[in-house]
Amino acid sequence: MPAMTRLSADEVDSLLRARTHWSLQDGKLTRVLEFQDFVAAFGFMAKVALVAERMGHHPEWFNVYDKVRIQLSSHEVSGLSRNDFELAARIDELV
Amino acid sequence: MPAMTRLSADEVDSLLRARTHWSLQDGKLTRVLEFQDFVAAFGFMAKVALVAERMGHHPEWFNVYDKVRIQLSSHEVSGLSRNDFELAARIDELV
Repeated sequence: MPAMTRLSADEVDSLLRARTHWSLQDGKLTRVLEFQDFVAAFGFMAKVALVAERMGHHPEWFNVYDKVRIQLSSHEVSGLSRNDFELAARIDELV
Repeated sequence: MPAMTRLSADEVDSLLRARTHWSLQDGKLTRVLEFQDFVAAFGFMAKVALVAERMGHHPEWFNVYDKVRIQLSSHEVSGLSRNDFELAARIDELV
């Protein structure tokens, strides 16, 4: 399946089971993280930024001090694609 | 005046006049920026992160691809302080 096909609800459910730290919010793949402090939080964001840029698939995210909220979706397909789960998996590896 | 005193509405109005790219939203000093792409947007965020960490005063911010929304406030005084305007001025220099 191409990375940029829109996933069906069943496919999303199936892939979501493997990503225990993520949930669906506003139709987006969402993970909220808390770090020790801003240095740790932004250091993590810098790592994710490099991975995302290399993938050509970027998160939307919010940060305040030690907290980071990441939301993934694929506007090209108005939903979720395999790219979102791939980026989520890489983010999990970085945490 | 100490940097961490809560500013009065008049003081905020006065300081806000010097920061033409900023407005008050949800009681927070807010600026929305758009860059050429993610590399430019996140590169800017990295610069702001270093300045914020050095000041010991951090933004809350949202990024999606080429857009960055920054909101500044001082939870220690439940409002705005001179630190917020100082950080805003430094951010303006970085843009």
